Amino acid sequence: MDEIADNSLTVNGERLWATLDRSSEIGAAPNGGLNRLALTDEDKEMRDQFRAWAETDGYSVTVDRLGNMFVRRGGMEPGLAPVIIGSHLDSQVNGGRFDGILGVLAGLEVLRSLDDAGIATRRAIEVVNWSNEESVRFHRATLFGSMAFAGQAVVEDVLASTDDDGLTVGAELARIGYAGPSPVGGRVIDANFELHIEQGSKLEAAGIPVGIVTGGCPTALFQIEVAGENAHIGPTPMARRRNALVGASEIVVLLNEIGWRHADTESRATATNIDLMPNKFGIIPHLAKLTVDMRHPDPDVLEAMKAAFVSGIDAAAERSRCTIKAENHLNLGGLTFDTELVDLLRETAARIGAPAMDLLSMAAHDAYAISTIAPAAMIFTPCKDGVTHNEAEDIDPASTLPGVNVLLNAALSRAQR
Amino acid sequence: MDEIADNSLTVNGERLWATLDRSSEIGAAPNGGLNRLALTDEDKEMRDQFRAWAETDGYSVTVDRLGNMFVRRGGMEPGLAPVIIGSHLDSQVNGGRFDGILGVLAGLEVLRSLDDAGIATRRAIEVVNWSNEESVRFHRATLFGSMAFAGQAVVEDVLASTDDDGLTVGAELARIGYAGPSPVGGRVIDANFELHIEQGSKLEAAGIPVGIVTGGCPTALFQIEVAGENAHIGPTPMARRRNALVGASEIVVLLNEIGWRHADTESRATATNIDLMPNKFGIIPHLAKLTVDMRHPDPDVLEAMKAAFVSGIDAAAERSRCTIKAENHLNLGGLTFDTELVDLLRETAARIGAPAMDLLSMAAHDAYAISTIAPAAMIFTPCKDGVTHNEAEDIDPASTLPGVNVLLNAALSRAQR
Repeated sequence: MDEIADNSLTVNGERLWATLDRSSEIGAAPNGGLNRLALTDEDKEMRDQFRAWAETDGYSVTVDRLGNMFVRRGGMEPGLAPVIIGSHLDSQVNGGRFDGILGVLAGLEVLRSLDDAGIATRRAIEVVNWSNEESVRFHRATLFGSMAFAGQAVVEDVLASTDDDGLTVGAELARIGYAGPSPVGGRVIDANFELHIEQGSKLEAAGIPVGIVTGGCPTALFQIEVAGENAHIGPTPMARRRNALVGASEIVVLLNEIGWRHADTESRATATNIDLMPNKFGIIPHLAKLTVDMRHPDPDVLEAMKAAFVSGIDAAAERSRCTIKAENHLNLGGLTFDTELVDLLRETAARIGAPAMDLLSMAAHDAYAISTIAPAAMIFTPCKDGVTHNEAEDIDPASTLPGVNVLLNAALSRAQR
Repeated sequence: MDEIADNSLTVNGERLWATLDRSSEIGAAPNGGLNRLALTDEDKEMRDQFRAWAETDGYSVTVDRLGNMFVRRGGMEPGLAPVIIGSHLDSQVNGGRFDGILGVLAGLEVLRSLDDAGIATRRAIEVVNWSNEESVRFHRATLFGSMAFAGQAVVEDVLASTDDDGLTVGAELARIGYAGPSPVGGRVIDANFELHIEQGSKLEAAGIPVGIVTGGCPTALFQIEVAGENAHIGPTPMARRRNALVGASEIVVLLNEIGWRHADTESRATATNIDLMPNKFGIIPHLAKLTVDMRHPDPDVLEAMKAAFVSGIDAAAERSRCTIKAENHLNLGGLTFDTELVDLLRETAARIGAPAMDLLSMAAHDAYAISTIAPAAMIFTPCKDGVTHNEAEDIDPASTLPGVNVLLNAALSRAQR
């Protein structure tokens, strides 16, 4: 095995961009973005392309029962736990070309760069495409690839979850040929790296290309059910109405106000979807369901936001004459990534001369789940204007490649451990 | 021709209820109501039943190009314009068993009762099933049967309008066999009667079975478009968001407040549906569309409500950072039914000893459209607790039959004119 030079290795930026350009063709949306929802034909085509690239370069590809794909560049000591570089190749509805995708293709580029440099590593490095990170298609199945791998979701439950057309994850995996034979999870991992676009504008504003993600922003999710009563809008007096849309609107306005109270300290309070029944003109809806999401870097402030929200619900119920149930069904984030890996990323950035700053992740990522079973850390790279989950999402090589080089050199360090 | 006795004719309540019971089986919903949306298989089955009853009793049935069905009991002077008794056999989503249906089947019962009494009339009487009164299935096609008959909608436009699955009115009419050969409208009508459940609780509260509807409540409809911007809810700061759901919720809350300001004088201000794009958890929606409905018996108060709504939109737009367009695309109601027909209904009720009171209709009905081309009036009958557009909608023979008898005797008077 060659000793690593003091000078850093660098990836081949043109080759990385060629893979990104090819990916951008698969499921291309009308305005430059992607529609490549999990387990669709487009997802299958991208998976096939990723597999073809990997096999052409001589890496092994395994697929587990939930369609998670593991592209492995073997190590000299096969008994050692591998280093993992993982993210996702699926997109949002009218999503961007880089959210998740950059992390997987940067991982592939790391493997290729090690080949170019003729470097054999002690540990294997595996690049992972986690299934369904975006969680927009299937009900009750969020980030299911990484979460089930980490034991945070039950494989059989995930396989049975359905989309709006009643199609199950299991049937769709089988249909696209990615219901793999490997068990989900149960493996020892030495380190998990994830590189991702920032999906914010702090790096861009600071003019710094590399974000060292120290942890995740505390996040609270509530499921809201507003129960009203069907009635005809003409004859039914205001005082006899129980309009679930009014109750839901009161909740959204309340939530937005709570978000603004702490806006100067990076609060988020959001509702983005509403399921209204029957959602027809002229008939007062009897039921509205929505999901409420609150985030704040300071867990105490988040608790205060949650309390303000819960205490405002009664007034919203009274004004709308509806019954409103709010269940805080999920709390995410609030995690600190592995100190040793975060330090390694900082040291690597310093060593290769890449300007870097610490950041907190405001969004959930696959690394959140993996951090519960293995040392994990993340690298953020800038995205133009902070725009994401939008077809206009954009990045450029000059501000992206420093982060990919940190990934390469940090993964290499860890793989030689 | 026999002279009419001073004493009134009465309908056969048991026979009427048997037709209502049969109707309640067709498209029966889980909780006692109906799902019999326009031009569905269930609508076809009910139309076939209605046609079979009519033909068995020897009435002629004609169908026009929009599926409006005319069941005609001929008169002695075929050249005279007919008397029409019309309403609709379609239902809301999870709607009631009587809204519209009672009016059509009461019309059929009027024809049968005239047969029972051996009465020939000078004018023909036609019972009409107007297509698609409920207007919940097809886009941009409200009350299309009666409105097109009255020249308020263009037949070709209606035929081309689509439902959520992209099926057109024209194709669905053909599929269920009700794309008839007759032209739509262009006929002279002597008088149009519509009997309908009140869809309110004024009659019930007053203990009076017959409502003489003097006109329709002034109604203003607005189409609202809230334009925001897609973004990821985690990284996007409050101050950079343009959440179309927040803008839409501000509109709904504003509207509801305006409704409450005039609640003691019978105001209505309502939104019941929202079309949100993309309506997915985690991604800020870029577009929300909703329809806003405001009503008040006093046109001046309605104008004040409209002005308050329009003037509140800027603040809603500012708070949500969205662009909000509001178009007052339709103004309905504000109509006065034909004085002569209304007087005839009052006199008939008095003559046959049916307690009656004047009412204003708060909802739109087929008679609104027909009133623009012919003398028209309506009779309301009580419905339990004022509940309507709901599976729990209910009526009983004791409080319903007086109104049906007024219909029979008033239609007879007019048909002998």
